[in-house]
Amino acid sequence: MSCNASAALPLQQANPAMVRDTGKTSAAEKINIGVLGASGYTGSEVLRLLAVHPYFRVTLTTADRKAGQSIASIFPHLVSQDLPNMVAVKDADFSKVDAVFCCLPHGTTQEIIASLPSSLKVVDLSADFRLRDVKEYEEWYNRPHGAVGLQKEAIYGLTELHREAVATARLVANPGCYPTSVQLPLVPLLEAKLISTEGIIIDAKSGVSGAGRSAKESNLYTEISEGMNAYGIAKHRHVPEIEQELSAASSCAVKVSFTPHLIPMSRGMQSTIYVQILQGVSVDDLHEHLSKRFQDEEFVIVLPKGVIPHTRNVRGSNYCHLNVFEDRITGRAIIISVIDNLVKGASGQAVQNMNLMMNYDESTGLLQQPMFP
Amino acid sequence: MSCNASAALPLQQANPAMVRDTGKTSAAEKINIGVLGASGYTGSEVLRLLAVHPYFRVTLTTADRKAGQSIASIFPHLVSQDLPNMVAVKDADFSKVDAVFCCLPHGTTQEIIASLPSSLKVVDLSADFRLRDVKEYEEWYNRPHGAVGLQKEAIYGLTELHREAVATARLVANPGCYPTSVQLPLVPLLEAKLISTEGIIIDAKSGVSGAGRSAKESNLYTEISEGMNAYGIAKHRHVPEIEQELSAASSCAVKVSFTPHLIPMSRGMQSTIYVQILQGVSVDDLHEHLSKRFQDEEFVIVLPKGVIPHTRNVRGSNYCHLNVFEDRITGRAIIISVIDNLVKGASGQAVQNMNLMMNYDESTGLLQQPMFP
Amino acid sequence: MSCNASAALPLQQANPAMVRDTGKTSAAEKINIGVLGASGYTGSEVLRLLAVHPYFRVTLTTADRKAGQSIASIFPHLVSQDLPNMVAVKDADFSKVDAVFCCLPHGTTQEIIASLPSSLKVVDLSADFRLRDVKEYEEWYNRPHGAVGLQKEAIYGLTELHREAVATARLVANPGCYPTSVQLPLVPLLEAKLISTEGIIIDAKSGVSGAGRSAKESNLYTEISEGMNAYGIAKHRHVPEIEQELSAASSCAVKVSFTPHLIPMSRGMQSTIYVQILQGVSVDDLHEHLSKRFQDEEFVIVLPKGVIPHTRNVRGSNYCHLNVFEDRITGRAIIISVIDNLVKGASGQAVQNMNLMMNYDESTGLLQQPMFP
Amino acid sequence: MSCNASAALPLQQANPAMVRDTGKTSAAEKINIGVLGASGYTGSEVLRLLAVHPYFRVTLTTADRKAGQSIASIFPHLVSQDLPNMVAVKDADFSKVDAVFCCLPHGTTQEIIASLPSSLKVVDLSADFRLRDVKEYEEWYNRPHGAVGLQKEAIYGLTELHREAVATARLVANPGCYPTSVQLPLVPLLEAKLISTEGIIIDAKSGVSGAGRSAKESNLYTEISEGMNAYGIAKHRHVPEIEQELSAASSCAVKVSFTPHLIPMSRGMQSTIYVQILQGVSVDDLHEHLSKRFQDEEFVIVLPKGVIPHTRNVRGSNYCHLNVFEDRITGRAIIISVIDNLVKGASGQAVQNMNLMMNYDESTGLLQQPMFP
Repeated sequence: MSCNASAALPLQQANPAMVRDTGKTSAAEKINIGVLGASGYTGSEVLRLLAVHPYFRVTLTTADRKAGQSIASIFPHLVSQDLPNMVAVKDADFSKVDAVFCCLPHGTTQEIIASLPSSLKVVDLSADFRLRDVKEYEEWYNRPHGAVGLQKEAIYGLTELHREAVATARLVANPGCYPTSVQLPLVPLLEAKLISTEGIIIDAKSGVSGAGRSAKESNLYTEISEGMNAYGIAKHRHVPEIEQELSAASSCAVKVSFTPHLIPMSRGMQSTIYVQILQGVSVDDLHEHLSKRFQDEEFVIVLPKGVIPHTRNVRGSNYCHLNVFEDRITGRAIIISVIDNLVKGASGQAVQNMNLMMNYDESTGLLQQPMFP
Repeated sequence: MSCNASAALPLQQANPAMVRDTGKTSAAEKINIGVLGASGYTGSEVLRLLAVHPYFRVTLTTADRKAGQSIASIFPHLVSQDLPNMVAVKDADFSKVDAVFCCLPHGTTQEIIASLPSSLKVVDLSADFRLRDVKEYEEWYNRPHGAVGLQKEAIYGLTELHREAVATARLVANPGCYPTSVQLPLVPLLEAKLISTEGIIIDAKSGVSGAGRSAKESNLYTEISEGMNAYGIAKHRHVPEIEQELSAASSCAVKVSFTPHLIPMSRGMQSTIYVQILQGVSVDDLHEHLSKRFQDEEFVIVLPKGVIPHTRNVRGSNYCHLNVFEDRITGRAIIISVIDNLVKGASGQAVQNMNLMMNYDESTGLLQQPMFP
Repeated sequence: MSCNASAALPLQQANPAMVRDTGKTSAAEKINIGVLGASGYTGSEVLRLLAVHPYFRVTLTTADRKAGQSIASIFPHLVSQDLPNMVAVKDADFSKVDAVFCCLPHGTTQEIIASLPSSLKVVDLSADFRLRDVKEYEEWYNRPHGAVGLQKEAIYGLTELHREAVATARLVANPGCYPTSVQLPLVPLLEAKLISTEGIIIDAKSGVSGAGRSAKESNLYTEISEGMNAYGIAKHRHVPEIEQELSAASSCAVKVSFTPHLIPMSRGMQSTIYVQILQGVSVDDLHEHLSKRFQDEEFVIVLPKGVIPHTRNVRGSNYCHLNVFEDRITGRAIIISVIDNLVKGASGQAVQNMNLMMNYDESTGLLQQPMFP
Repeated sequence: MSCNASAALPLQQANPAMVRDTGKTSAAEKINIGVLGASGYTGSEVLRLLAVHPYFRVTLTTADRKAGQSIASIFPHLVSQDLPNMVAVKDADFSKVDAVFCCLPHGTTQEIIASLPSSLKVVDLSADFRLRDVKEYEEWYNRPHGAVGLQKEAIYGLTELHREAVATARLVANPGCYPTSVQLPLVPLLEAKLISTEGIIIDAKSGVSGAGRSAKESNLYTEISEGMNAYGIAKHRHVPEIEQELSAASSCAVKVSFTPHLIPMSRGMQSTIYVQILQGVSVDDLHEHLSKRFQDEEFVIVLPKGVIPHTRNVRGSNYCHLNVFEDRITGRAIIISVIDNLVKGASGQAVQNMNLMMNYDESTGLLQQPMFP
């Protein structure tokens, strides 16, 4: 059931989540949401965001290894929420679900989504449908693509750049975190041919939640605290996704240098991007172009000249802060983009996409401000 | 202008903050809020919470040393908010303000509040009106009380325990953080005479934001990280406040042992309270009594038996999690209470009180779930 | 005045670990050390401390699941050290080993130590030989004691309190971290009958390294950072050990309230101990008694009155800082004891004991100062 | 085999710092050290390192604003050390001092060092003598050079690269932290003409201790924790120092892109350096050249191919770990260099230099291994 806010929900029917529900809003106005793979951080983050969403109500949660358990038992921060216990995916009843956030790991996701009723709207937070070229997927993920047919209809969901396609999509491939932070500044600059497609160097930094909730020695508190390190040098799986989108924006093949680093913090992501400016273009031109491009956007904020973006200033929110700086080396600029890897880098962007797909204002349920300190 | 949600704002006028404002809600339905002392953490936290409050709109911010500056210039995490620049208190125009959150340090607060128009509703987040006994204030704060007359009308605002008085108050003294975390479990148990008034030992732990934003060497990142310590042993200013309330609950003078500790985290507070259970009372009785007392409360959650409260499970939210455990020593129990020191310990409780004072549902604007990880 | 080492201190005479080893020191002067269970934090911490020990040379490391691997491959911070690769315990050649640090988990340790050549000196860092009462061990560890005979000869190794016994021991049971921090102040005060054996309340705090290097979800960075919590309430395995020693010091059965808390830091431990002072005794008496008791000790420092111990001030070192404070409640005192849980709480104390057992100055190799910030 | 120190190593021969000093070592064998500006982190770090130095004994500490205070009162982690109280520089008696570590801020340092007795050996940890071109100093530090004469004799003290000059120097300008981490890998590669002098991009990351102990709001725990940000973009004062040395190595003017970032940790520094490899050179060639260049060095360790340096693996030590990786973009390489900014980036390198200047083995007192976790 699709739903249009201005038509189907006149103000008198509005049911603000920030005001206690008096029960007067009819159930028919709520969208029934399923969260598959609710036991990981992107899943719990979707649940946290939806807790204050006026129109989305979670009626299904799945997690195969935790089937039968309550959400509160694995995520006690959500104890005040009335959420359905988790079931195994194979036992899920989709008949009463309108739309699904799929937060499963890459790999099995393709088969699972392919098996869902085709009436369901789906936002997939895994990497399984992000790469348009099935061969590229197979090369980087070491397995055959499990839903080649579906791949064709999947829409790459970087909202600010593809909102028309997202709004009419049935299946949205939610972008990766690093790719989101990189594309927001670079795609407009490449499309406008203001920066070179050559020699783009991305030095990226991420908090640890990006690694997920798996019990791995390398992600123990003691292994992370008071130290940092690069990882996945020159072979991180976000590279093909970044290059796919930058190439599309440039209408030619773009290859980037991409080096991620693990930072001792739970949330936060920064991409420091070193670019060459094209002849006749100044750093001020870059700043101006991005400012114009995003001036009507809620979630992408180009800061005033000289103001440095901090990851802490978008923590817990769906915002992205950007800025451009002159480099010491002539003809080069430094672009800084910060997001919260779990929100704009995953679950927040997913909710933003789902809002569009279900015909609500894109920012619905996403206006909580960043949390600082 | 007082405002009653069920009468004055029929659902069709509801203006949910989580849905974009179409401009159809008339300005008359918004309460104009002033935040005095907006340059500290409790001030910025009020601003963060009010960003998604459907009825409170900030129309005035003051901060003497930052007069003329924008909020975003000192709190860039609020850059997306349209907030008035800060002015000096003496230059503030209160004629268009309905209510005020006073986030100034103790000391000058009394004089400033005494000078405000008496039609203003005021929630004071400082300690300046918390102690009913003016002599006690003078002894602990080393200065004469600057508004003795006002002290009489000030209502101590621990919402769950004093909501009727808060609802009709003009001036609410918002409780301190440690006292909030201690009173929520102890006041009901003392009132019901289930625990002894003797030998109450409180070992409290707090994140660093409780120390505020003053540039002090002892609060530098390098001085705090990877270490912890007790402070203010046997002489913390929250002691008279705690004892005032526990004594009122017990109808006799209660003296506590109270030792706060500084923990390397920004937010979070835990009180581990060691009590003697009275004859004939079991730990289960304590758990049951608290569960009943708080069962209809949104923000106070007594966890199932055996489940340990974690500060991280209430981070960024107005929730308090409680539980009671049997001690190894017969006749003793261990009570654990966790809150976010900036939210339920300060700004969240302030908004909760102001909601009551302005006749809204207490939980308005406070239903964001804790942020984890 | 410049000073030339080669003139004033002929090379064959000087062999400080802090000066490069020219190889002229005869092998006979070095003690060959084995580290069993070198793949955990206590094992790596022994290796780190021994790197600058003038007389102990590591000639054997074992770790069953990492057999064949180099130490540097699992602990890259030790990459500059020339250490033998790990072997499985069953493949270890003890013929060229003089003494062993056993850093294996409790459980199998008893059998393994029982199987070692009886000529070896052994310091066991597990809990397997700490409890003198075999039945107590079986009750708390849910398994039968695997080396009852050996238990009789095991010496409990809290160095400052039992050094004579340690010096002549063949098998030393190295104390647990919390018990070490608790006993150092309490045993002297109980022996001197200055404090009551009743109502001892220990609120303890520890960094995460105490949990070891096992990949458990609860110890992930994201699960720990920016939050704290109690754990093991009223049932922590260190309780019988603490009570065994406090009872021995008091010549009567002592029961304590003991509540450990997990703090977001890697290293550090604080015990805040609430005691009742006996009649006629003042807090100053307690301070004076401890000051005298420890005045000749290198590693136990009673701070000047009023100075609060911080865990950060002993980080990475074998020091313990103590102090006593007057409580607000008459007749009570608050004792604070801080150590580094991996050093004085485990591996440092183990080296300290081994020094004694091998007839060296107790502080050999342990004089590195705490690391701050 | 037990071993008795008193038999095998007569006391007058052994004087290791890791063995208790029985007082038999003659005072004549100790070098008297002064630490000017002992109240900051580089000063306290020198004191920490010298605590276990067999030949350097601190006989003077100065700190103008703390004159009269004990070191332990401002750095309680050094409470076990017997150090002279701080005096004002103007009251310092240099007659009994052989050598001085100057840890004062840039600015006044030049005048102060110029006023010291010329017989003193001096290692200056500030920036005041690092730039050979006095005009460059004046441009970047906004003040005239206060000791132009001395500048000529000052030796730039990156030990591994300039040890002959350091050994005979009277005044050593100790390098900055970022410049140290950058030069160690780049100078050898530039000298050998293996990488281009063009397009060197340095994305650097540092812990907070690099900012010092000044009470600045931006360095408060709450302002730093759980977030990161770039700073000093394209205008950091380490740029002229880096370019001076890289230009000298290349025999032509080198300009770099240098962007430092503040990371939420106290210690640690990583430079991720993006370079172009010259024609006919492979990444393996770079790795091989660096491996050979540093194979006999104690403190510079080129890790095996593919092993990623982590700042945590050198924490608290004087070590630098390096490695070289192939970039995704043809003809480019990624060099990673990690140090502890307070040790190899400041005080450790200072002690290393002083050892040389006083004719001791360079590594004396610096062999403590990194501390992990």
